Amino acid sequence: MFRFNCDYLEGAHPRIMERLMQTNTEQTVGYGMDEYTASAKEKIRKACECEGAAVYFLVGGTQTNAVVLDALLHGYEGVMAADTGHVSLHEAGAIEYTGHKVITVPAVDGKITAESAREYLVRFYQDVWTHMVRPGAIYISHPSEYGTLYTEAELRALREVCDEYGMRLYLDGARLGFGLMAEGTDVTLPVIAKYCDAFCIGGTKVGALFGEAAVFPRGEDVPHFFTQIKQHGALLAKGRLLGLQFDTLFTDGLYFSIAKKAVCQAMRIRRAFEEKGYRVYIDSRTNQQFFLVSEEKLREILTKVVVDDWGPVEDGSRLIRVTTGWATADEAIDCLIAAL
Amino acid sequence: MFRFNCDYLEGAHPRIMERLMQTNTEQTVGYGMDEYTASAKEKIRKACECEGAAVYFLVGGTQTNAVVLDALLHGYEGVMAADTGHVSLHEAGAIEYTGHKVITVPAVDGKITAESAREYLVRFYQDVWTHMVRPGAIYISHPSEYGTLYTEAELRALREVCDEYGMRLYLDGARLGFGLMAEGTDVTLPVIAKYCDAFCIGGTKVGALFGEAAVFPRGEDVPHFFTQIKQHGALLAKGRLLGLQFDTLFTDGLYFSIAKKAVCQAMRIRRAFEEKGYRVYIDSRTNQQFFLVSEEKLREILTKVVVDDWGPVEDGSRLIRVTTGWATADEAIDCLIAAL
Amino acid sequence: MFRFNCDYLEGAHPRIMERLMQTNTEQTVGYGMDEYTASAKEKIRKACECEGAAVYFLVGGTQTNAVVLDALLHGYEGVMAADTGHVSLHEAGAIEYTGHKVITVPAVDGKITAESAREYLVRFYQDVWTHMVRPGAIYISHPSEYGTLYTEAELRALREVCDEYGMRLYLDGARLGFGLMAEGTDVTLPVIAKYCDAFCIGGTKVGALFGEAAVFPRGEDVPHFFTQIKQHGALLAKGRLLGLQFDTLFTDGLYFSIAKKAVCQAMRIRRAFEEKGYRVYIDSRTNQQFFLVSEEKLREILTKVVVDDWGPVEDGSRLIRVTTGWATADEAIDCLIAAL
Amino acid sequence: MFRFNCDYLEGAHPRIMERLMQTNTEQTVGYGMDEYTASAKEKIRKACECEGAAVYFLVGGTQTNAVVLDALLHGYEGVMAADTGHVSLHEAGAIEYTGHKVITVPAVDGKITAESAREYLVRFYQDVWTHMVRPGAIYISHPSEYGTLYTEAELRALREVCDEYGMRLYLDGARLGFGLMAEGTDVTLPVIAKYCDAFCIGGTKVGALFGEAAVFPRGEDVPHFFTQIKQHGALLAKGRLLGLQFDTLFTDGLYFSIAKKAVCQAMRIRRAFEEKGYRVYIDSRTNQQFFLVSEEKLREILTKVVVDDWGPVEDGSRLIRVTTGWATADEAIDCLIAAL
Repeated sequence: MFRFNCDYLEGAHPRIMERLMQTNTEQTVGYGMDEYTASAKEKIRKACECEGAAVYFLVGGTQTNAVVLDALLHGYEGVMAADTGHVSLHEAGAIEYTGHKVITVPAVDGKITAESAREYLVRFYQDVWTHMVRPGAIYISHPSEYGTLYTEAELRALREVCDEYGMRLYLDGARLGFGLMAEGTDVTLPVIAKYCDAFCIGGTKVGALFGEAAVFPRGEDVPHFFTQIKQHGALLAKGRLLGLQFDTLFTDGLYFSIAKKAVCQAMRIRRAFEEKGYRVYIDSRTNQQFFLVSEEKLREILTKVVVDDWGPVEDGSRLIRVTTGWATADEAIDCLIAAL
Repeated sequence: MFRFNCDYLEGAHPRIMERLMQTNTEQTVGYGMDEYTASAKEKIRKACECEGAAVYFLVGGTQTNAVVLDALLHGYEGVMAADTGHVSLHEAGAIEYTGHKVITVPAVDGKITAESAREYLVRFYQDVWTHMVRPGAIYISHPSEYGTLYTEAELRALREVCDEYGMRLYLDGARLGFGLMAEGTDVTLPVIAKYCDAFCIGGTKVGALFGEAAVFPRGEDVPHFFTQIKQHGALLAKGRLLGLQFDTLFTDGLYFSIAKKAVCQAMRIRRAFEEKGYRVYIDSRTNQQFFLVSEEKLREILTKVVVDDWGPVEDGSRLIRVTTGWATADEAIDCLIAAL
Repeated sequence: MFRFNCDYLEGAHPRIMERLMQTNTEQTVGYGMDEYTASAKEKIRKACECEGAAVYFLVGGTQTNAVVLDALLHGYEGVMAADTGHVSLHEAGAIEYTGHKVITVPAVDGKITAESAREYLVRFYQDVWTHMVRPGAIYISHPSEYGTLYTEAELRALREVCDEYGMRLYLDGARLGFGLMAEGTDVTLPVIAKYCDAFCIGGTKVGALFGEAAVFPRGEDVPHFFTQIKQHGALLAKGRLLGLQFDTLFTDGLYFSIAKKAVCQAMRIRRAFEEKGYRVYIDSRTNQQFFLVSEEKLREILTKVVVDDWGPVEDGSRLIRVTTGWATADEAIDCLIAAL
Repeated sequence: MFRFNCDYLEGAHPRIMERLMQTNTEQTVGYGMDEYTASAKEKIRKACECEGAAVYFLVGGTQTNAVVLDALLHGYEGVMAADTGHVSLHEAGAIEYTGHKVITVPAVDGKITAESAREYLVRFYQDVWTHMVRPGAIYISHPSEYGTLYTEAELRALREVCDEYGMRLYLDGARLGFGLMAEGTDVTLPVIAKYCDAFCIGGTKVGALFGEAAVFPRGEDVPHFFTQIKQHGALLAKGRLLGLQFDTLFTDGLYFSIAKKAVCQAMRIRRAFEEKGYRVYIDSRTNQQFFLVSEEKLREILTKVVVDDWGPVEDGSRLIRVTTGWATADEAIDCLIAAL
């Protein structure tokens, strides 16, 4: 049965598998000091149009969020995030485990706005703030957990808030490719590099077996980050595995073409739902789509394909998430559409 | 140039790569809930003759040590380790980062003896121990960082110390295969499962791309360990990758045959060094060998092959480490021997 | 100028000061092993009608919350609290610093209800909860930060939620005396000891120079708590100071008479505000009172006495807090009332 | 029975008690924002000849060490200390609890030398140091746990090591007064302020009920330290208590006269032991004295006065510690000497 319930069901794009096979018996030094890793870093710097960026490769998304935020924050600081943010909810307290509070503000379509951030900060500095956790960074996910995207103007506004209050801006790009390839977006890698103090480029969900690239556009800001990766148990011994995957993804635009195809497939699914009269729950232009279906219909769909049931909503219908990935085949979508 | 400087230079054993290719486009649920992982766990339980064991797969060695020890220890407890132990020195403070002190006792050939552990504990309980860090576990590495091994009697003696003082025994098996296949050892997986509260079976250095199996022989002891893995940022999204690798390693005894071959290669190297009159620094029967060579000779060797220079020792000569792995070829060893 | 802006403006009740003077040159062993501390513990056990209780003395409120919650929680657990709770807002992240998430639920009059707790828990276990922070305890403050009180029925209902979900119930009694002496309450020390796994009896705000008694009614639940106090830097060298203060407070009911007087003074203030037509913001029967005054009136009042300005509320008026303590004199209140 | 087993047996110097009584009913703002605290800070700055110093008051010694070191260190750094140092042994892991490794080097008479520190650092940077805990500070105690003292030259040498390796120098002055008043020392408060990045002036053992002054001679180095105190649960609500005690201690040189008298008493004890032929274990000029006595003699002494038994030493005799404090009376010493 075809599955649409998440975007990390399959392994890696064939081109990555191929190169992993080709290089399998090469002897390379460990911990990312190899040439594949060096090459991958250089390609990412180019793609970000940011020659001075420091780039590191980590294994997983929660791990990357925790290690990077811990590096960005002082010990007494916390991180502001949308209350629907991944760090707020579904990372098992990985941020708090490093001693930092996640300060939630109400999300608007999965996003944190400069307005709501500033509103929090104004109230914070009116309160007895020296007895409170100083917000040292803003965490945003792009695309958000609801598939929504920031605009360049929104990123700029968040940057301004950060500058005003002495904060860092971190963008969690676990699904970044799908955001960059969304129709109508004006946010590119160089734009992100311009506004953020750190961000990650997700590989796990965009064609890799695993792996996230942590990028610090102002490279010198994070002394001893390598040691911090090790300290968090996040250092991969055979660093080649990460370097080679990202080197492949950033060769001939593979990262972008993978993402673009998945987004197209997602939009095809959306059109099909719309045509059949289903309500679109939120306007996502990325690889995650959200629809409302009746409980009865959901049961029926689930006999044909797997989609992600997010539970009942106000009007009695259920919210489902349908996700595409690098490997989503046309016939899988045909099957899904037939089930509607 | 052939490299003998560590045991994680190459990728994975071909049989693992093959299965990764075969299963690459299968859609499997994430986080280790897939069937490959279930199968791998079952095979490990069988190999340990321990049906009730809880088995989890993590990505790296330092990570596994940190997450498992944090789960075994109460917040106010520390872990005893040899002063040469990996957790004591080369994990960038990953254990302390989780709040636990590493309490070092002097190593004997890289090992912690029941006598030295007991000596520490006797003194501890004579001191104002309620103002001190209670040792809650003993950490041992098997093989140790010097390639040495515990005997069953030594493990039993450590177990007795642990029982006497209400402590847990954790065995770091990052190179476990090489220990199990060493000539003359009486320590097997079931023996380890009998005496330890937790141990890990290293994959990274024994044929896998990456991965460590954390085994809790008394399964019920670690509630919510899955959540703790996530909390430490150590949960791999595509859990199939870990499950499938360990499933392959524990099919038809691959884990053991890989290790056995590497140990044989290491012993061949040792015989060559001995025949040529070099001093063996420590009696290791495993894949790591330690020799003393003159500084001049070392420079010469390093023009032919790469070995690991551990620096000068007392008598003016230098200590080198020579390591074999799953991929060490006969011709590489020929080349090394020719350089002596 | 008389101050009503908080309840720890003065030093200690004269009877405490007197005994501190009397015993000043006695040589007593440190860290709470002295006889005054033993006597104080025994008196508290009696007052709680709980002979098996473990009692410890700490210096401050935030400290006590952090140390006790850390002892009650497993490393992977968090604590549920009202979003207005002290641990949620004004402890500078002391709880998160120990690695535990504070999981907020919306407060009702400063309180967390069994209904809202259960609602959170039901949703939690419907979500992918193994990727989330398990709530391991409920934190309540009694009186709350708004002077409100739980009833015995409400405590029982929270206890039931805790039992149902395997959680601990912790009551922060920084202002406990004022709650116990409030008119109409059915919550006594034995009632608290019956329903809570741990609670603290605040001294700082109720007649002591400083000091909080941490009580674990089921004594054996907290092994090595003494060491945990030390580990958190919370152990007072001259333990006599804490023991003697609590011994004095729990001799001849001083703790209760101090609190009763302060509550009476607060109620006198409330009646005066009501008589003069001010709106009472929340129905508090304890030593903290909350009123709405116009901005102009507030400016006028502040020329005569100090009250705590909590900022503007909906209707344009400002919320003020007026607090009494053990030392609040009649003439101070006369002065306040004259200013209305 | 007179006690010489530690230096915090009694309460506070009478002049402190007197002022606590006098000010008991004054209403002062909390958290150290009161005038007594401001005055105490100013007096300490003057005594240190360091107008720019930031001064904070904390309650206890372990607490101060943990909070200050956490503020001085980056998250990935540890602190070097003598293996006999208080932070290494008797603080229940308070430093590790904040995530920082205590890196021990062998003590010489309770002290860490610039040579041993440099030796460690040279080896560290020859090792795979990016996988190890970077030493970010050196911790010294002055007087040490063995009553010994650093010279100005030794402090300067440690400062040079710190400058060379980008480290901070922290001096734990829990017994600082006794060190400053020792015969022959060339270390004064201004000297300490010159060489250290932070230090504490102990009150608990030198005339106060409790309290330690944390001094940062280069004030601007520790942003948000107030919040960090709160975060660690170390902020005293009634800050006046700390401010007033230190204000008294630094009025008319009380801190120094208290310490001087205790040192004189200690030297009188030492002369008596020497005259009666006991071996002095270590050359301490401070309030702690260490002697060797036979087991039989110790039993006899302990029937007359209390001294601190540090256990057997090599030659079969036992090491005892005899300590004086602000309250040690002549008759107590007479009694001790009579028992020899």
